[in-house]
Amino acid sequence: MKYNLTQISKPIQSELVQFNKLFKESLKSKVGIVDLITKYILKQKGKKVRPLLVLLSGNVAGGINERTYRGAILVELLHTATLVHDDVVDGAEKRRGLPSINAVWKNKVAVLMGDYLLSRGLLISIDGNDFDFLRVVTNTVKRMSEGELLQIKKTHKLDIDEETYFRIISDKTASLLSTCCEIGAMSTSSNPEEVKAMREFGENLGLAFQIRDDILDYVGTTKLIGKPLGADIKDKKITLPLIHALKTAPKKESGSILKSIKNGKNKKSISSILEFVNMYKGIEYADSFARKFAEEAKKNLVIFPDSESKKSLENLVDFVIERKN
Amino acid sequence: MKYNLTQISKPIQSELVQFNKLFKESLKSKVGIVDLITKYILKQKGKKVRPLLVLLSGNVAGGINERTYRGAILVELLHTATLVHDDVVDGAEKRRGLPSINAVWKNKVAVLMGDYLLSRGLLISIDGNDFDFLRVVTNTVKRMSEGELLQIKKTHKLDIDEETYFRIISDKTASLLSTCCEIGAMSTSSNPEEVKAMREFGENLGLAFQIRDDILDYVGTTKLIGKPLGADIKDKKITLPLIHALKTAPKKESGSILKSIKNGKNKKSISSILEFVNMYKGIEYADSFARKFAEEAKKNLVIFPDSESKKSLENLVDFVIERKN
Repeated sequence: MKYNLTQISKPIQSELVQFNKLFKESLKSKVGIVDLITKYILKQKGKKVRPLLVLLSGNVAGGINERTYRGAILVELLHTATLVHDDVVDGAEKRRGLPSINAVWKNKVAVLMGDYLLSRGLLISIDGNDFDFLRVVTNTVKRMSEGELLQIKKTHKLDIDEETYFRIISDKTASLLSTCCEIGAMSTSSNPEEVKAMREFGENLGLAFQIRDDILDYVGTTKLIGKPLGADIKDKKITLPLIHALKTAPKKESGSILKSIKNGKNKKSISSILEFVNMYKGIEYADSFARKFAEEAKKNLVIFPDSESKKSLENLVDFVIERKN
Repeated sequence: MKYNLTQISKPIQSELVQFNKLFKESLKSKVGIVDLITKYILKQKGKKVRPLLVLLSGNVAGGINERTYRGAILVELLHTATLVHDDVVDGAEKRRGLPSINAVWKNKVAVLMGDYLLSRGLLISIDGNDFDFLRVVTNTVKRMSEGELLQIKKTHKLDIDEETYFRIISDKTASLLSTCCEIGAMSTSSNPEEVKAMREFGENLGLAFQIRDDILDYVGTTKLIGKPLGADIKDKKITLPLIHALKTAPKKESGSILKSIKNGKNKKSISSILEFVNMYKGIEYADSFARKFAEEAKKNLVIFPDSESKKSLENLVDFVIERKN
């Protein structure tokens, strides 16, 4: 690995400390149980990739200010709300190495906490008069839920083509990363060209990130990615490597693979699907897309003057497509 | 029953038709599955009490305009989102006579649909530049989730006094009704006195409504209220009638009742608790509070000129405390 998140965070190390302090304050509540759960959430230390994106983008487009911090808190609260709801819908027992909120306090509390965290984030923007952030973020919440709903529908029917795949990963994953970069730029620049460039940078970065994530399901090792190889296939999630193989292979062979995804949960069928994807060059195909989006992302940054923070954003692009977990 | 909702809606009958049309349009989505589910939600016809409150308040404080409609759609979308999430957390199978969203499409879809509906509502306010609505509504979402979380905590411990009870029902129920009236007034009046009066009217109406609801758990009939008598007790929800009886009765007797709530799910213990509440005048006590809040609500309206819509709001107050289901 050429880079890691600690190196990438270097140019804004002290700003991240300040962010963590403000984020902690934003989670305080006078309602005892709410305060207890938010303290627990703070113990589940996340990687804070989204605030990192807001702060770096803010720095690149101008210089970090109060509004940049509020934007970073908004996206982290929104992301946390999403994770809490996701764990309910997936019945997940763990989150970041600790038992999930739903595992400790039950589903009811987790759904309500997600709603609480979302409204908390929105209120910070409202109190700060950041209505431009609100517009962007609320549209993102809508896109994320639409994207996930579309994925559930398509997963259920095993009916997904490249166009639908790109729409889903754009709505589900890239939209929030794009919003982070857009909000960062909006906080420090009033130049619409710069805001647009940062938004597109985030979108391209997000697409590359999700495609890499989907590739890792086929080539990662259990130890590194923390979930077994082929977990998506077991969940009947059809992603780009498989979509390409299914399109490229003879119809009869694709049909039999689809059938085995529908029925099979055994190890043998998983390994035959992995082989199938390899044979029809699904990984290479997906990888070429990830690299294309990564390249586009770097191009989006050319309008900004060189700086440590800009270099970090470029390194983040490389990190995203080269990561092994 | 002196009044019903149809009579109360008379002064704004044509406006409600227009609201229904706009509400239906607001639910349209380009994502097939989202559109399918929102069409299903429209079939679960609700009573539309919240839009009714927005429209009547708007009329009383001035005259219904575009903004009043947007406010009504916002609160109905928010309320619908809450119901969809509530059904997940309660594992409810039915909603308004039809299978619930979680029963038809599973929990995952229902949680995401709730998030979608909430963001849809917020976007309508953002697109309409109704930032004053956003501030009020987002704060309400926060209060509602805090109120419910507090109730869960207290229910679990069977530890609840009058002060906590009023705090819970204010956050959980009265906050949204208060917001409806406030938004209605904000849409048609720029006089802060009028907006405040309407907000307080909604709060008092909401408190009276919830206390009446809690009384009905002790005096209603299964046939009318659609759930068995004592359902709250079974859920270990301690409400005003019981709180008063527990405070008034000798300590030993209260202790034994609390013990039977903790353990008992049998019919005998339920009926002995109902008797206990009657003996220590819990119903009368709660009813006197409901009437006090109802009276306050009517007083809040005196600053407004007489009109058909104002009469309807007054009748709604009577309806709320006299209803049998």
